[in-house]
Amino acid sequence: MSPQVTFHPKGRSIDVPEGTSLLEAAILAGVEVNSACAGKGVCGRCKVIVEGDVESEPSAKVTGEEWSTGYRLACRTKVKGACTVFVPEETQLRPMQIVGGGTGTELKAFTPVVRAVLAKLRPPSLQDNDGDLERLLKGIGCEPGTVEVPLSLLREVPRALREGEWTATAFLDGGRLVDLQPWDRTSRSFGAAVDLGTTTVALQLVDLGTGEMVAQVSDYNRQLMYGEDVLARIMYCEENGGERLRRLAVDTIDHMLAQACSSGEGCEGKGSRVCADEVRAMVVAGNTTMVHLLLGLDPRSIRYEPYAPVTNLPPSTTAGELGVAINPRAAVHLVPGRASYVGGDVVADVIASGMARGEGVCLLIDVGTNGEVVLGNREWLLACSASAGPAFEGGEVRHGMRAGEGAIERVSLRGGVRYSVIGDTRPKGLCGSGLIDLVAQLFLTGALDKKGHLQPSERVREGEDGKEYVLVRSRDVERDGYDLKANGMARFPMDEVERRRDITVTEADIANVIRTKAAIYAAAEVLLDTAGLAFGELERVYIAGGFGHHIDLDNAVAIGLLPDLPRERFTFLGNASLDGAKLYLLSGEMREEALRVHRAMAYVELSTDQRFFERFSSATFLPHTDLRRFPSVK
Amino acid sequence: MSPQVTFHPKGRSIDVPEGTSLLEAAILAGVEVNSACAGKGVCGRCKVIVEGDVESEPSAKVTGEEWSTGYRLACRTKVKGACTVFVPEETQLRPMQIVGGGTGTELKAFTPVVRAVLAKLRPPSLQDNDGDLERLLKGIGCEPGTVEVPLSLLREVPRALREGEWTATAFLDGGRLVDLQPWDRTSRSFGAAVDLGTTTVALQLVDLGTGEMVAQVSDYNRQLMYGEDVLARIMYCEENGGERLRRLAVDTIDHMLAQACSSGEGCEGKGSRVCADEVRAMVVAGNTTMVHLLLGLDPRSIRYEPYAPVTNLPPSTTAGELGVAINPRAAVHLVPGRASYVGGDVVADVIASGMARGEGVCLLIDVGTNGEVVLGNREWLLACSASAGPAFEGGEVRHGMRAGEGAIERVSLRGGVRYSVIGDTRPKGLCGSGLIDLVAQLFLTGALDKKGHLQPSERVREGEDGKEYVLVRSRDVERDGYDLKANGMARFPMDEVERRRDITVTEADIANVIRTKAAIYAAAEVLLDTAGLAFGELERVYIAGGFGHHIDLDNAVAIGLLPDLPRERFTFLGNASLDGAKLYLLSGEMREEALRVHRAMAYVELSTDQRFFERFSSATFLPHTDLRRFPSVK
Repeated sequence: MSPQVTFHPKGRSIDVPEGTSLLEAAILAGVEVNSACAGKGVCGRCKVIVEGDVESEPSAKVTGEEWSTGYRLACRTKVKGACTVFVPEETQLRPMQIVGGGTGTELKAFTPVVRAVLAKLRPPSLQDNDGDLERLLKGIGCEPGTVEVPLSLLREVPRALREGEWTATAFLDGGRLVDLQPWDRTSRSFGAAVDLGTTTVALQLVDLGTGEMVAQVSDYNRQLMYGEDVLARIMYCEENGGERLRRLAVDTIDHMLAQACSSGEGCEGKGSRVCADEVRAMVVAGNTTMVHLLLGLDPRSIRYEPYAPVTNLPPSTTAGELGVAINPRAAVHLVPGRASYVGGDVVADVIASGMARGEGVCLLIDVGTNGEVVLGNREWLLACSASAGPAFEGGEVRHGMRAGEGAIERVSLRGGVRYSVIGDTRPKGLCGSGLIDLVAQLFLTGALDKKGHLQPSERVREGEDGKEYVLVRSRDVERDGYDLKANGMARFPMDEVERRRDITVTEADIANVIRTKAAIYAAAEVLLDTAGLAFGELERVYIAGGFGHHIDLDNAVAIGLLPDLPRERFTFLGNASLDGAKLYLLSGEMREEALRVHRAMAYVELSTDQRFFERFSSATFLPHTDLRRFPSVK
Repeated sequence: MSPQVTFHPKGRSIDVPEGTSLLEAAILAGVEVNSACAGKGVCGRCKVIVEGDVESEPSAKVTGEEWSTGYRLACRTKVKGACTVFVPEETQLRPMQIVGGGTGTELKAFTPVVRAVLAKLRPPSLQDNDGDLERLLKGIGCEPGTVEVPLSLLREVPRALREGEWTATAFLDGGRLVDLQPWDRTSRSFGAAVDLGTTTVALQLVDLGTGEMVAQVSDYNRQLMYGEDVLARIMYCEENGGERLRRLAVDTIDHMLAQACSSGEGCEGKGSRVCADEVRAMVVAGNTTMVHLLLGLDPRSIRYEPYAPVTNLPPSTTAGELGVAINPRAAVHLVPGRASYVGGDVVADVIASGMARGEGVCLLIDVGTNGEVVLGNREWLLACSASAGPAFEGGEVRHGMRAGEGAIERVSLRGGVRYSVIGDTRPKGLCGSGLIDLVAQLFLTGALDKKGHLQPSERVREGEDGKEYVLVRSRDVERDGYDLKANGMARFPMDEVERRRDITVTEADIANVIRTKAAIYAAAEVLLDTAGLAFGELERVYIAGGFGHHIDLDNAVAIGLLPDLPRERFTFLGNASLDGAKLYLLSGEMREEALRVHRAMAYVELSTDQRFFERFSSATFLPHTDLRRFPSVK
């Protein structure tokens, strides 16, 4: 008999072999448990509360108090017999806000990657008994022999032509015939644009006949189970091979596709749903590691100097070969990238922003799990990647969280503490924009000095990790049925429970934010320096990435994350990668531009650039060592 | 318990379910049994002798005497219990003569379909950290993004480059990367040229580094079990689907490949054998039906007016997709054809002959299971197909057989009956060249009139099918251990046994030969007529096909199969299809020529051409109604 493990609050049970880790059991049970280190016991994210027959290793991430309460690291705890596990809110992966792109790039010409061509053919006769395929290709204006036709499709050609009485719709992806349907069937066709992020994945289903969006879905990347950043994923591959992560990437996309197809209203107001077989193209924009994992390419060289990936320009493949659940002959195109840490997602940002089409020099900043910066115009482009760290995505910050339900996204401290929470529920933590606001407001109100030290005040106290500022006092917040026992708080006196539930920012967190913003600012400076330009000469600064829609410009300038330019020069792009993928799907011009960007963009390696370290040091103050750069803050 | 069936003379036993036909049991046991009608009980080829527990349907093909001897049609006999089956010599498929091509077309430039390119790459560095794939492609002089790279190969690129310390051999088939090997491995590469005939299949393994032949193999097409001509095969598909025949075609090729690879001496005198993975390209020349069956395309439209096939220009596919046991990424190229009955085998003949490169007008005749005729020069080409019938391959002739061991291949009747036998054994029947000689010699010696009637002589007797000429009297031939009992002859008096073992040609056989030669001659005439030319204006007449090496020119002219031209204008090409396939493998110029021939060749449909029927009628005399056309015979 295998022991049974039950997970709360989801209430799911699963039988697993003795010796299975709780993290593995949770994955098997479909219960989402945070884990940033791929089960190595070092990140402390997978903290759960356990009752029952288990065997755990002690961990520095679990304090003595926590231990006695039943807190364990799921990855370091093995099932011996029946047990019950509670996954606390902070350990759960929560639903996130769906952030669509808003770049609004206008297409000059609508030239989707797959075009449907109606073929009205003359039936064969003794005087004209060409082969069916040659008849079809000539009928759609192609020279036979110059079009690639998959064997599986060729086998269907005679039936399709005869069923449609020699009238059929051919679907062409470049020089490749992807599908053929008898005329009496629908000729509609869809494409999927995918932004494959390390943390989140966004997908748009687009009507390739009209270019209109049919459905949009976001979800967590299921690979999250094996680590939060690309390095953790690569390490997992080195130890276990890439197949599991490849499968999880495909699963994530498949799940979203199923949602999008069933929610799609269909084109022409038919109200019908989209069949998977009608999806005849997919474009994926992702960072280089995500693309490697999706394609099953060995990602290990991305992790080691000289950081040469298997490819930055992956050849298109087919859905059938990848195992993605759309028309198996549909091509899966990958937006080309530039380097191991400037991937197709950044190229997609660039084409969505339009910066590679104008004369004026622009800066583009994409802050995701990593931070990428691009500088240039239609003549030249420079790009680099800064190990910004996950602070703005809620990582490595005590009460940090992603921009999901319960995240504090806005903070103001002038005239009293005020904040707003996503989903209007009890606050659970701080997301990136909230963190920027909080640090900026602390600094602007004098509660924080320029080195990031908290000044004494009634909200500053000594916590476990040193000084911390209490933003939300839990006693000020409604209890709304908080279950002390289930959260393992029953043993504590009430004031200790409240203390533990307070939402704080520590000096360590603030140092983290400063390092992150300094890395991004310094990266931008190095690019400008390389081009011999100053911030003031920038025509526009584009801010891309999931967090871009939410940050407060003044606060971002106040901490020195963004340069102190007239605010109208900033443009928030939102999820520009998704927009770029969609443009790639819909426009041949954009596909050419992506290839041009891949070829033309020069990559600046910061990890060995002395200028970067100097500028980074100067930027590790609020807002900067050189205050003259930030007149509006002064 | 399944009943056991034992086949002699091979001595193989097999257990089969009750109700299995003996034909099916023989196929399962790997015993070759002739069958021309796909088991319909109409051809009478699968006659075997049975003892044991079986249930048979009577057949017009089995006489009362034969029935009482135990003769049954294998296809109409069902296994009820244990039984023993003897497969007589005439029912067995016998090993055939291997006929290689001998066209000797000289290649101007050696440009094999797969070229090996050595890549000496600079290892990646921080200053140059291109992706491995881009590095490789630039290193071999290709623009990244313009070369197709299969995903399965892309996955191997990083390992191959690092194992070879950044030196590797890339194998390119046109714009497609087929393989990549580290430098320390062999860079040799092979291609397979296949002539996929309805009856026989020939394969050459060629070194793509030197163009030299490494091995050559011939075998029967295993589809023979399901009918002797293309129509029988198509009918089988209509009733049973194409998968079994597709599989048998692949099996035939795989079996030959295994033989060729193990017999190959390897290149550069290494004496090593060829690995299947080193075979990186295959070119197949076959008639349109054979190509359809190999690719799994529905062949039924080939059988019905207006005879439009699925394709005459099949796109290349891969060995992996077809299931052929060479390097799975190797492309399988099909020599393009022109029409349902003028296939890639004829186009291969044309490129091997060189007739599409010269100024003089030439005629090409390929007599296989069908007869195809091509007329033209480098400016224009006309082609047609005549339902010649299988007489010259031993079909529909009482003692006809293929050119294998025991076949009479030469006959002379001047100054007494003389003949020569393939393999120098006891004669078993007449192959095509023997049949032509015999009919010609009978005619020239006055034993046969111009209408094909046998004149009375001591060798002419009344047989079961009317008058017949006895070429070989069995009493004149050594007995060499002929087993009366095993051959079911024990019940007959000795003179009847001898009579039955005589080798004869009947008036019906002769009528058959006349129809066949008339069809080919008339087809050639229609093409000349279409072009406004006469036989005398031909620069050269090419004779292709397995039988071409053996026929006697004077005798072939004497019966009116070939026009009465100066003999030096005839050229025997042998297996020109195989030669053409090999040229296609080795020369880009030839690949272009094949495509040009496919596009330029005009197809003349004879089945509805009144001229053909008129000229056919005039040609159904020996040698022709119009004797002035055959001065050398007169």
